Amino acid sequence: MRRLCVHTITTKPLSLEECLVEFPRRGVSGITIWRQALEGLDLRAVARQTHDAGLEVVSLCRGGFFPAASVAGLQTAIDDNLKAIEQAHAVGAPLIVLVCGALPGQTLVESRKQIAEGIAAVLPAAEQAGVKLAIEPLHPMYADDRSAVNTMRQAHEICAALGSPKAVGIAVDVYHVWWDPELKAQIDLAGQTGRLHAFHICDWRTPTTDLLNDRGLMGEGCINIKEISDWVDATGFTGYREVEIFSNRWWSGDQKTFLDKISESYAALYPQDPSK
Amino acid sequence: MRRLCVHTITTKPLSLEECLVEFPRRGVSGITIWRQALEGLDLRAVARQTHDAGLEVVSLCRGGFFPAASVAGLQTAIDDNLKAIEQAHAVGAPLIVLVCGALPGQTLVESRKQIAEGIAAVLPAAEQAGVKLAIEPLHPMYADDRSAVNTMRQAHEICAALGSPKAVGIAVDVYHVWWDPELKAQIDLAGQTGRLHAFHICDWRTPTTDLLNDRGLMGEGCINIKEISDWVDATGFTGYREVEIFSNRWWSGDQKTFLDKISESYAALYPQDPSK
Repeated sequence: MRRLCVHTITTKPLSLEECLVEFPRRGVSGITIWRQALEGLDLRAVARQTHDAGLEVVSLCRGGFFPAASVAGLQTAIDDNLKAIEQAHAVGAPLIVLVCGALPGQTLVESRKQIAEGIAAVLPAAEQAGVKLAIEPLHPMYADDRSAVNTMRQAHEICAALGSPKAVGIAVDVYHVWWDPELKAQIDLAGQTGRLHAFHICDWRTPTTDLLNDRGLMGEGCINIKEISDWVDATGFTGYREVEIFSNRWWSGDQKTFLDKISESYAALYPQDPSK
Repeated sequence: MRRLCVHTITTKPLSLEECLVEFPRRGVSGITIWRQALEGLDLRAVARQTHDAGLEVVSLCRGGFFPAASVAGLQTAIDDNLKAIEQAHAVGAPLIVLVCGALPGQTLVESRKQIAEGIAAVLPAAEQAGVKLAIEPLHPMYADDRSAVNTMRQAHEICAALGSPKAVGIAVDVYHVWWDPELKAQIDLAGQTGRLHAFHICDWRTPTTDLLNDRGLMGEGCINIKEISDWVDATGFTGYREVEIFSNRWWSGDQKTFLDKISESYAALYPQDPSK
């Protein structure tokens, strides 16, 4: 399926090598690589192997986490993001997804300032490497320690404050933004401003039993995934639909079966996406 | 402490009778009564006993939960809210807090329509009983099955759509709205429009291990409670600060000790609030 991408974290128990075998067997065309999956590997070799497996590297996850209690802490974060840009360049990832960060006890206003400062600091390196950056607004339940950017409106504001450089855009993840009454308008704006850099899908289960690792497979929850996808496509977006699922439940089972389910549920949701 | 109110749910293991003894001993001046605490009780007697205990009934929790899959379902919800209005009137509660409701699989747009419809249907009875209604925007992590109203902006929109009747306002709970970048502006607007009906406090713990019942005592988390309180007071609000904590952790311990902690933490946060 031409627009189906899967994140390596989705099948966390599999090695990257196994992903490169198992993803294409289910019609997966793209792969988003989480940095932990790269540990100890030769990045140029990964780029070659991924290409040979018939997979396109869609993005690298994840940069960000800028907010820090000290100038030195912010610099450490900037350095780590510069390293991520090198890694993305080496594996052929055109995009890095930014989970922007937050610090319990520091005001969200201050954290957002540091986020903008951090992105500005790494932007020249990203531009030089030909790597785009995508601010991913995170669900407000992560405002304490994961991201002070919790709506698309805020992500747009940061892009604008940076002078709207082409390299900086937004990653729309239905899990984080489905509840937002402004969602359609903000997606439209992302299309108009060329900021719609990535689109992630999964589902919201009722009840959700873990704030981090109880995401659902598409169809297991209440998110209007198809409607949001239509809004995204209506902007002219033709990029991947990236399946990003953190789930202790799915991770504890057989990953090949899980990949079968992902493929089936994707095909049911997007019958128009032809096989490669 | 003149503006300290505690919700009966905060000390869930205590009976209402026990609350009426233990709350005043810690300088608590107000009580918000959850409907389950009233089961089997004579409501007029409760009103009398509460008054005799030196406690003011601040509000009744909770009405709402309007969204339904059928017309009959919505009518059942309306009937239950009419009953809540009778109960509020009987116990002398001037306000009912509305947890508006949501239905997994039904669009949030449809749910919001039903919420407005439900409030409109019970409004005349509320006005006649002299009972106000407060829409409580719930944290977006409850958008699946608890409330399709997740920001103060949306609550304002519903008030406006109803023609801004004086009886309908907003309950601001720091747990639900602290992350909102518009919070100060929306609180200001609530003040200007006479919609600021209630103010609830607790804290957001890092990590939060349960979506429902892991709230923190003030000071245990990252919410800028004092700053938000100042915004609320700056509108001219002189009502209660209502301590509403759902916590398996606190509920499993001694409730008298917990009440001591609530009293201490409140006094530390608001040293200006004099003892009665």
